[in-house]
Amino acid sequence: MKKVYFLGLIVFLSACGVEKDSKEVVQTSLEIHKPENAPTKVLNVGFLAINGVYNSELMAPYDIFQHTIFHTDPGMKTFIVSPTLEPIVTFEGITVTPHYSFENVPEIDVLVVPSAEHNMDSDLEDEVLISFVKEKGAKAQFVMSLCDGAFILAQAGLLDNVKCTTFPSDIAKMRKRFPDLDIYEDVSFVHDGKAITSSGGAKSYDPALYLVEYLYGKQKAKGVAKGLVIDWKVGEIKSILP
Amino acid sequence: MKKVYFLGLIVFLSACGVEKDSKEVVQTSLEIHKPENAPTKVLNVGFLAINGVYNSELMAPYDIFQHTIFHTDPGMKTFIVSPTLEPIVTFEGITVTPHYSFENVPEIDVLVVPSAEHNMDSDLEDEVLISFVKEKGAKAQFVMSLCDGAFILAQAGLLDNVKCTTFPSDIAKMRKRFPDLDIYEDVSFVHDGKAITSSGGAKSYDPALYLVEYLYGKQKAKGVAKGLVIDWKVGEIKSILP
Repeated sequence: MKKVYFLGLIVFLSACGVEKDSKEVVQTSLEIHKPENAPTKVLNVGFLAINGVYNSELMAPYDIFQHTIFHTDPGMKTFIVSPTLEPIVTFEGITVTPHYSFENVPEIDVLVVPSAEHNMDSDLEDEVLISFVKEKGAKAQFVMSLCDGAFILAQAGLLDNVKCTTFPSDIAKMRKRFPDLDIYEDVSFVHDGKAITSSGGAKSYDPALYLVEYLYGKQKAKGVAKGLVIDWKVGEIKSILP
Repeated sequence: MKKVYFLGLIVFLSACGVEKDSKEVVQTSLEIHKPENAPTKVLNVGFLAINGVYNSELMAPYDIFQHTIFHTDPGMKTFIVSPTLEPIVTFEGITVTPHYSFENVPEIDVLVVPSAEHNMDSDLEDEVLISFVKEKGAKAQFVMSLCDGAFILAQAGLLDNVKCTTFPSDIAKMRKRFPDLDIYEDVSFVHDGKAITSSGGAKSYDPALYLVEYLYGKQKAKGVAKGLVIDWKVGEIKSILP
């Protein structure tokens, strides 16, 4: 039976928040990691970074995944892939040199799509970009979006038939652009099948930490979290049966 | 009378945390912004980035400060300054090209020192680095550290006679290295005089957002916070009278 994992949007980053319940929430999963989830090899985690990529959406999950190497073996190998090897400039104006281009990137086990400035308009018409995401996403074990990166995953067809989410203020736009998709609000992230989509910003740590726990277990996730001064509470993750 | 501002470490990033009280906490400041705090010009915010700088500690405050330009005018001009103009490689392995070197950096109003891999050892013996921080910090209106960046500020003498904090696991090391300093634990950040020191990691948004509120007011801070999917609660900030 397919399970979908959510993390309440308000729970993680506020003491005063009250977790929104959904009729669909039927159980609390106290243990999301299972032995069969544990990778037997280093996972290649490729971060798609194009001009206008947002710092937080790139760096927060990057840090979570990169730090796995200090807590588990085999861990994750993180890298940045861009259309070419030319440096890209983030939305906030930081110049970053990619590790790989679309041409020479190695196999990607986890494809991460951080939001970028034009994810809701011109990037959706960029056939090279969308083809890359479609092809690499199809082969990947997991695809993850931060913030409006969900629009890119959706355009590439990777969110068909799965529950998903995006940046809170862009939920309506995403529903309009992709009326057939099942888009959730008031959640930090949604995991359904191989897709993990998320709200972004400072909450961009959540979906990555969740995946670390899913793959490597609670203690490893807590170790990674502690290094990043995050109080990670596995008990706050709810699973739903769609 | 000098006031020191704290944000409880657990409050911001966990629903289950209980804020630790201190005997010194004597009032809750519901309004930290005062008209006299409001800058009349664009503030230059210089981020010190050296090899081994941690992504989150660099990017989280960078995003908060850079995004001010969408919420207030005059806002902040953010840039990265490194010893030379050569690209630096972050702890997590991302190559970043600085905007300025120590030689050509413009005036810095807010000097931000994110942690880097060797902040607790060899960086403290780097006379060029420490001299730069000492000189620019003396002229700046504010100095801010994330995580172990506090060691650099301390070595440069910028934490003499102020309360301060650092990465939770390095509090003991900092007390040993700088026995005369007044180092707090269980707080996200401490603001005392011109120094704002903080715990780091995913909590690196806090001190920057606090400074945005201090300078530009609650509504501006809430606007910046919303864009980064942060629930910023001014009422959670406590002021103490040392």
